[in-house]
Order: sequence, then C-alpha cells, then structure tokens
Amino acid sequence: MTPDSLYAVILAGGSGTRFWPRSRHEQPKQLLDIVGSEPMICQTARRIIPLIPPERTFVITHALHTEKVRACLRDLPPGHILAEPAGRNTAPAVGLAALHVRRCDPDGVMVVLPSDHLVQRPREFLQTLQRAARAAVRHGSLVTLGIHPLSPESGYGYIRLGEEIGKGLFRAAAFVEKPSRPRAVRFLRSGRYVWNSGIFVWKADAILSAIARYLPTISKDLARIDHAAGSAREAKVLHAVYRRLDSISIDHGVLERAENVHVIPADFGWNDVGSWGALDQILRKRRDGNVSQGLHIAIDTTDTLIYSPRKLIATVGVSGLIIVETEDALLVCRKDRAQDVRQVVERLKQEGLKEYL
Amino acid sequence: MTPDSLYAVILAGGSGTRFWPRSRHEQPKQLLDIVGSEPMICQTARRIIPLIPPERTFVITHALHTEKVRACLRDLPPGHILAEPAGRNTAPAVGLAALHVRRCDPDGVMVVLPSDHLVQRPREFLQTLQRAARAAVRHGSLVTLGIHPLSPESGYGYIRLGEEIGKGLFRAAAFVEKPSRPRAVRFLRSGRYVWNSGIFVWKADAILSAIARYLPTISKDLARIDHAAGSAREAKVLHAVYRRLDSISIDHGVLERAENVHVIPADFGWNDVGSWGALDQILRKRRDGNVSQGLHIAIDTTDTLIYSPRKLIATVGVSGLIIVETEDALLVCRKDRAQDVRQVVERLKQEGLKEYL
Repeated sequence: MTPDSLYAVILAGGSGTRFWPRSRHEQPKQLLDIVGSEPMICQTARRIIPLIPPERTFVITHALHTEKVRACLRDLPPGHILAEPAGRNTAPAVGLAALHVRRCDPDGVMVVLPSDHLVQRPREFLQTLQRAARAAVRHGSLVTLGIHPLSPESGYGYIRLGEEIGKGLFRAAAFVEKPSRPRAVRFLRSGRYVWNSGIFVWKADAILSAIARYLPTISKDLARIDHAAGSAREAKVLHAVYRRLDSISIDHGVLERAENVHVIPADFGWNDVGSWGALDQILRKRRDGNVSQGLHIAIDTTDTLIYSPRKLIATVGVSGLIIVETEDALLVCRKDRAQDVRQVVERLKQEGLKEYL
Repeated sequence: MTPDSLYAVILAGGSGTRFWPRSRHEQPKQLLDIVGSEPMICQTARRIIPLIPPERTFVITHALHTEKVRACLRDLPPGHILAEPAGRNTAPAVGLAALHVRRCDPDGVMVVLPSDHLVQRPREFLQTLQRAARAAVRHGSLVTLGIHPLSPESGYGYIRLGEEIGKGLFRAAAFVEKPSRPRAVRFLRSGRYVWNSGIFVWKADAILSAIARYLPTISKDLARIDHAAGSAREAKVLHAVYRRLDSISIDHGVLERAENVHVIPADFGWNDVGSWGALDQILRKRRDGNVSQGLHIAIDTTDTLIYSPRKLIATVGVSGLIIVETEDALLVCRKDRAQDVRQVVERLKQEGLKEYL
C-alpha cells in the first residue's frame, strides 16, 4: 500500500433523533456542534487530514443533507459528496462508496468513518488507522477497530477477540449486538471483548467481494449503478436502483458472516456521542457536577446538563436532569432516560407535529 | 352603615418575586394572569362590584405600576389610583388610603383587599364582607377575615380565636406569623386557629385612630400628607413624606397590638397564590397529575406543572417539577422548593443581571 491509495469514506446518513430538540430531520447530529465548536462531520474530516487529504475523502449522506454537508466540507471535490436517494443503512452506503474508491484506484484502501463520533486523541487514532490499513492490505481482510470497553454498556455492539494473528491484530470470533447488562458485565470482566466502533478499514475490492458473497442482491444492484456511472443515465439509475435495495447494516450483512474479519483493539478517546447522556462523560463539569452552555443560576442543583444559549435558565433543587432549549422546543429529561428522547420523536410523528421533527 | 358608605381599598404594592420568571420588577404578580384569563387585580376589582362599584374603589400601588394598573381598571376614577412614591409595606398604604376614604365619607367603611389573591366562591366572599362591615360599624372594631385552615401551612400567618362575641364573630386572641410545622399541626388540630387572609374591614376613622395610637410617627406624617391634600403642594409633600415612613405591615404595626380586633372565620375558596407551587392546588390536573399550558409531550412524566405557551415542551422520566418558560428566561424547579424561587431573584440582583428582574 502506498499512502496515496488510502481513501476516507465518511458515513453521514444518520438522522440522530436522540439529540432532539437540537437534532432535527433537516439538521441531524453530524451537522451540529454537539461537541466542540464546529459540526461533528467537519471535525471528522479535519481529524484525518494528516493521513488522508480532502481529495481522497468521500462522504455519503441523504440527498436532503448534501447541500449542508457541502457547506461544511468545502475542500472536498464536488463529486465526492455522494447523495443517497433514500436511507438504506450502511451496507448499501459502504458498497456505493466502494465503487467510487475502486474507480479512483483499483487497489484503493478505504477507511470507513461514522461522521458523528468523537475522538479525543487523534494522533493515536491515526496511528491505529495506519496499522489497520497495513493489515487490510497484507491479509486482504476486513479490519475493524475495537475499543477497549470502559463500562458494561448494553447499548453497544461487542466483538469477541479470537486468535491473535499479529501484534495487536486479532481474528473477530463473534459479533454480539446490544447484550443484556449482566452479559455486558461478563464481557467486560473477560477482557476478550471490545466495543465495535463502526470504524472499518479494507480494500474497496475486498468489501465489494464480500458484499457479492453475502449480499448478492445488493451486489447485483450495485453493479447496475456502477455500470451506469459516467453515463447520462447515472442519476436516474442510482435513484431507481438504490431505493429498492434492502436496508441492512454492513455489520449484520457482511461482518458477522465473513471469515476474514480482523480486529485491532485500540484506545483513542472514542465516544459515539449516542445521546444527551453521553455528553456527561465528555464535557468538563463544574464542581457541582453541572455542565451548562448559557447563563445559569443554580440553586441547590447538581449533576445537571444544560443547553440554553439563548435564555437565562434558573434551576432550583434539581439533580440529574438534561435541559435543552432551542428556538421552538424545550426538553427536560432525566439523565438516565436520555435514550428515551427517541420516544419523543416517535410521539411527534404519531401526533403529526412535523414542524418539530 | 348605608351600603354606599362601603369603600374598597385594593393593595397592589407587591413585587411578587416568587412567580419569577413571569413576575418581574415591572410586571408583578397582580398584573399577570397567573390564574384565570385576566390580570389578578382585574379579577379582584371585578369580584367586589356587586357590593362596591368602581366609583368607591381605591387602588394603592407603586408609582412604577400606576399606568399598568390604570390600563387594567379603566372604570376607576383617575384619582382613585394612588401611587406610593416608594414601597413602605401595608401600614402606610392602608393609612394613606384611609385618608382618601375619610375625605369621601367621614363615616366610610373600607374593605382592604390584597390585589393578587384568588377567591373561588365569590358569593360567599361578598356575604362575608357584608357581615364584616356590619360588625365593623356596630363595634367600631378592626375586623379581619380568617380562613379555616386546610393544611398545616408554615408559610402563613395564623390568628387564634378568642371569645365569640356574636354569631361567627370572635375576638382575635393572638397573631402568630409563620409557625413551625409541628406548631402549625397543633393549630390545625385545635380548631381554634384561622389563617390571616390579609382581608380587613374597618371604618377609615377607626384604623386612623389605631394608627395614631400604635404608630404615632406614621400617623403624624400621614396628617401632613392629609393637610396638603388638594393644595398645589400635595404631590411634593406626599413624595417627600411618604419616602421617610417606616416600612411596616398593618398586621404587625397595628392588629397584633390593638384591643378591638375581631375575626370572622370563613371559607370562600381563598388562596393567596403565593408561589408556583400554589397553582398545584388550584389548576385542574390531568389524570397523570400534570398541568400544562402549551403543547406538551409527556413521556413517563407525572405531577409536573408546565407553563410554556410559546414552545413545545417534551419531558421524559420526570416528576414533581415546575417548568416555566418566558421570552428571555427559563425556570426548572422542584415543586417542593417553589418558595425558593425568591433565591433566584436574590441571585440575579447580586450578580447584577438587572434585565431579568
């Protein structure tokens, strides 16, 4: 592998309902500055520049968001922002991006990155990506980055480490999605499990072969899209074909079934920033355990997370809350129920309150 | 007493810090529609019309609020809205109003009413006032309306009932301000105590005599103000003299010390609407115990009071909260801490955040 055969594919198809009311249908999490001072997708693209320049970076996002993504990532070639006609989960998205990478470089290696994760130690992150790229080229394998678990999270996917085939490189023995809490505790204690970060490194060719084997229908449809590339029919074919693809994740559709999956356990200050509750671990707290953005008068208030940049907020006698104020909506949520903000979005849908979605 | 010697004096000097962020320095509780659809002072004036018409109603308020009060009470003669040059508690305010009543009618009987209390059964209320007026004329006494206590509130003033000198008319044996909770429990059990409603009935002449006796300095200064009435110096004298008066309540300054204080225990759905928490007892709750004004998505939410007319609010997993949203501020307060909203106002003062007061 030469360094310039390394490509980045940023997956930006998420709708991020768990950050309502900040995240909206037209403004998902990756386009928000939930953490840091610029949208998360900008941070993601900026973070890899020392390894992969914008000219070799692709983003795949819902057609609805392409303009906003473009505004965030002005250095990317216009053709590198790939619009999904509809959200079809990660397997089709990765497949579509792989076609583009392979067209640029038949030996191209792609680093697949979620657009809305946090990395607190970027140097270690880039070093890990380089190791993963070398492994992917040497073994022709599908390499995933595993995160040493810090707590028995039951909302994550876990990977069981198999045989160590090189220094810090393991076979993936099994994928376990969202284990029960007791099971997650056992995973943590065993030392044999890592969190699935959703960050993958592989040759474009290798993943397309794996898709052909495990998701043949999707593979055939991708071939149709590939065939039309560069022709006048390109957009029309993409539009027609993509919408009928199965909606399936690359983890479930390919990685859980493929033989040549490798894992590199690593630790680079990763956080998927999965809900308002996750900010608790990320943002620096004051002595009282509160974190606030905006003017806050705290009377006997502890362990509370506040986002209220427009308004003064006063809290009296409360603890363990998340309070988020936006232009048209307000959320007050118990911290340990942060995952259930999704239920609010569901309810808004049911009640036809579209303007708040 | 003829019915047309009955005058109303509405005390509207309160600053109502406990309803922050709705109540503000320039918009105290009596000018807000905290309960009902019009400002509380309008409800107070409207409620007594069957007994006392606007022509015989006076309002005394801080100079800052006279224009807003006038806008609420257009039927009052312009000279009946008395502006206090500075807030000096109720003794000076009652004295000043008594001068006006006496000038209209040397035998005038005045009904003193807080501007911001709720009365849920106005007919019984008016009947009680009539009985009080008859007693005040017959005995020349200072008559207070006592409320049969419903709970051992420790934030109220209590009056111990003495000898029953007529049907339902008692001597006031003692005034107890804000008893401890155990003491309030004993009061409630004894059946010999009533809440001090702050509603008083007396001849203007009788209260001026009592002020002369128990608050002689204030009385002399009131005489100076009275002397200047109708002259070119009136406003100037009022301004100069009123500001130097002691700040003292009529309860503490006169009623607790006078001999001729009578009490009529009554029950007319009274509530002083003392804090956000009080609304809990007043407003009709939904089955989940929530009360909300505005669009509310409730996920596992109980016993919560919401005022958010401008914004959709979603609550997840919370209970026993008060949430109030206004144009520039937001309050989240545990319901049993509603009294401590005053601390927020204190803190705003300390931190020089005047625009939020």
